Amino acid sequence: MTSKKPAGRVRVALLGCGNVGASLASMLTDPNRLAEIEMHAGVSLELAGVAVASLTERRPSLLGVPAQLLTDDAKGLVERDDIDVVVELIGGIDPARDLIEAALRAGRPVVTANKALLATVGSELADLAASNGVELLYEASVASAIPLIRPLRESLAAERITRVTGIVNGTTNFILTRMAESGEDYHEALAEAQRLGLAERDPTYDVEGGDAAAKIAILASLAFRREVRASDVYVEGITAVRPIDIEFAAHLGYAVKLLAVAELVQGGPDLSVRVHPAMVPKSHPLAAVRGAYNAVFIEGEASGELMLYGRGAGGAAAASAVLGDLVVAARHLRSGGSSPAPSRRGPVSFRPLEELSSIFYLNVDVVDRPGVLAAVATVFGHHGVSIRSMEQVGLGDEARLVFLTHVAREGSMLATIEDLHHLDAVDRVGSVLRVIGSSDAPDPSAGPGLARP
Amino acid sequence: MTSKKPAGRVRVALLGCGNVGASLASMLTDPNRLAEIEMHAGVSLELAGVAVASLTERRPSLLGVPAQLLTDDAKGLVERDDIDVVVELIGGIDPARDLIEAALRAGRPVVTANKALLATVGSELADLAASNGVELLYEASVASAIPLIRPLRESLAAERITRVTGIVNGTTNFILTRMAESGEDYHEALAEAQRLGLAERDPTYDVEGGDAAAKIAILASLAFRREVRASDVYVEGITAVRPIDIEFAAHLGYAVKLLAVAELVQGGPDLSVRVHPAMVPKSHPLAAVRGAYNAVFIEGEASGELMLYGRGAGGAAAASAVLGDLVVAARHLRSGGSSPAPSRRGPVSFRPLEELSSIFYLNVDVVDRPGVLAAVATVFGHHGVSIRSMEQVGLGDEARLVFLTHVAREGSMLATIEDLHHLDAVDRVGSVLRVIGSSDAPDPSAGPGLARP
Repeated sequence: MTSKKPAGRVRVALLGCGNVGASLASMLTDPNRLAEIEMHAGVSLELAGVAVASLTERRPSLLGVPAQLLTDDAKGLVERDDIDVVVELIGGIDPARDLIEAALRAGRPVVTANKALLATVGSELADLAASNGVELLYEASVASAIPLIRPLRESLAAERITRVTGIVNGTTNFILTRMAESGEDYHEALAEAQRLGLAERDPTYDVEGGDAAAKIAILASLAFRREVRASDVYVEGITAVRPIDIEFAAHLGYAVKLLAVAELVQGGPDLSVRVHPAMVPKSHPLAAVRGAYNAVFIEGEASGELMLYGRGAGGAAAASAVLGDLVVAARHLRSGGSSPAPSRRGPVSFRPLEELSSIFYLNVDVVDRPGVLAAVATVFGHHGVSIRSMEQVGLGDEARLVFLTHVAREGSMLATIEDLHHLDAVDRVGSVLRVIGSSDAPDPSAGPGLARP
Repeated sequence: MTSKKPAGRVRVALLGCGNVGASLASMLTDPNRLAEIEMHAGVSLELAGVAVASLTERRPSLLGVPAQLLTDDAKGLVERDDIDVVVELIGGIDPARDLIEAALRAGRPVVTANKALLATVGSELADLAASNGVELLYEASVASAIPLIRPLRESLAAERITRVTGIVNGTTNFILTRMAESGEDYHEALAEAQRLGLAERDPTYDVEGGDAAAKIAILASLAFRREVRASDVYVEGITAVRPIDIEFAAHLGYAVKLLAVAELVQGGPDLSVRVHPAMVPKSHPLAAVRGAYNAVFIEGEASGELMLYGRGAGGAAAASAVLGDLVVAARHLRSGGSSPAPSRRGPVSFRPLEELSSIFYLNVDVVDRPGVLAAVATVFGHHGVSIRSMEQVGLGDEARLVFLTHVAREGSMLATIEDLHHLDAVDRVGSVLRVIGSSDAPDPSAGPGLARP
């Protein structure tokens, strides 16, 4: 099926109609909004077709979309010759990958929010887009409406970025905020997130850090112009964080956050890309990011410290980001030009986690008897891990020892933990949290930035 | 003087060589950085000339710039036929305006950081650029390296923005932070800012709000696609803020910030654009912006709340933003395309301040005798201003009454203050601060946003 292509109008195929898709469809069928876009950006958009999983189960949110626009043949829609731009909001690898590739091969720009796909084959898709001379835009793939991808691709194109530190998963930030502010434990806070629709019934992808890993892979690829995939990211989730860790962190002036970090190790060329819970000083802007909000803190050689903050999720916010990309793609189609294609040249090497250094927090449950602390401290000393402070909290016959180390190598810390497990007097080695933004010799002129520990 | 134009290379004329210019010149004469830019952005930049005020007084920061690039004939440089792009970093109205106009008329894109000029004749310059088919880019004019102008022009092109609230002047934010954290008074904190090079010897433009007014005029023009000039902005500076105000605000859970606000009043079409000190709840992301940092909080219908944060000043940070613009302009010159020209169509109307409503904080010094509070309260009541809380602080024979009102109209508040001056028992009416982010019926689901008072 084909139809006549009105001159100048940019015809959009929308694939997938979940929360974000339905929100976008309602924007693209609102004559007032289309008139505003035409006035402000000089492009005229038209929703030309919407591919849904099933034509029989119509979602109430789609009632505003004319029935004749709906189809269950996504591939057919992508290849219809009246389509100018394809928006992919199906998510996941299959069939999204095939559909995006078909669109790019047909010479059609693609706008997508598909982080999982981009973090897996983003480089191949970028190459395919480049070889077909069309754009692949994905502002909504990370942190929703926060302008992040375009600033990294354009505003910071000439900047030497040294580190990107993000709170990029709203579910885990909601859970950790709730644990900190209401004293709930992980399971209670997760249940509350599920009740509010902020966590999936199976929360694994969020709470184990997989979602954050995909997002930091995308950001790292742009910031460091290297190919970084989700599978390159070291990942720890938040399921082991306990209320006592958060309390103790607060007592020391820190908030516990799930951070996604990508950095040039000691100026490069090695990268470290990782996701793990960390203690962030309360004075750091990231510590103030509460609930389901996201923020990305960017450190550049000339730009200094930047932070971009906003809602991490929600159909309307993500649709706003998709629409922004759609306007850019449409402008380029009609007026020429293109977004800079991020180069990913040069080899990429990752520094093994064991070779990084950090300050560590950890807690150890021990039998409360004389000599235990000496035995424990001996293990630290044996591995060259220097103890900065220790506090003991009584627990009946047991005691919990809460340690903060000086800067130590990850490898030494892991070996320490391994040996602690073998001490008779140790019942349990609890949470281990990396501490950022502090050092043995804090530099008061460094501002709120993350001093390299 | 003309020279051969190497194919593909984009030749840059730099006008003005203060902090930002010298920092940019050093980037544009660094072969490694130029090679990186070519690799990452696909454009090759060359510094073709630098206009300075005087050839005899060479600044040490310019020692890296080859002498043959320097000239004291800015107009001649702009019109040299080997120039592709002009960067204006002279500042002020004259001769910057003439030079920019000459460049645009010669068909050369212009990158500028000149907020004062843009807030005065930005609309005329934008029209001149459009009619000559060239770009006028000015990311560095507001909040330095924070990506702000491009996100507003592009990422948020299709968004309905309802309010922009910024901390856009680093000098005043440094002073207010210092007053809050060290207990210094305004004059001591200003002296410290001057000592650190964060305030001019004559600090008027910063501390009286003129700088912030120019910046919010630029942001308002982009966010609301209307012509807003610095002269349209209502301005109050920070010189009347006293330590007691900051202490009292802290006691109530607020920080005192100089805010620049542009908003659609009650959904529009009227705008309110203003600069004044305000009490910001500690839980609000803007309250955590310390020292010379800047941040802009953007509220959009679909995007929700966004905040863009970073260094507000500094040669390198501003040069980074200028360089980002330069890369975009160079890409467009070589590969086609253009940045969206912000439309400023439609009439603009400003809601008079007197017709806005807010919660107010004010303090009044009175003679400490019976009946005084009743007399003062009667004045409030007479103008329909309802008192939410009052605290009395003794001062020898005097007393200071510190009031917080319920939501009241500005006009009523002004009339109240006027009448208070006429009461015999009133010695002085001190600071008046608007309180944002709180209301008589706070909505706990509203998140960290600025609830309309």
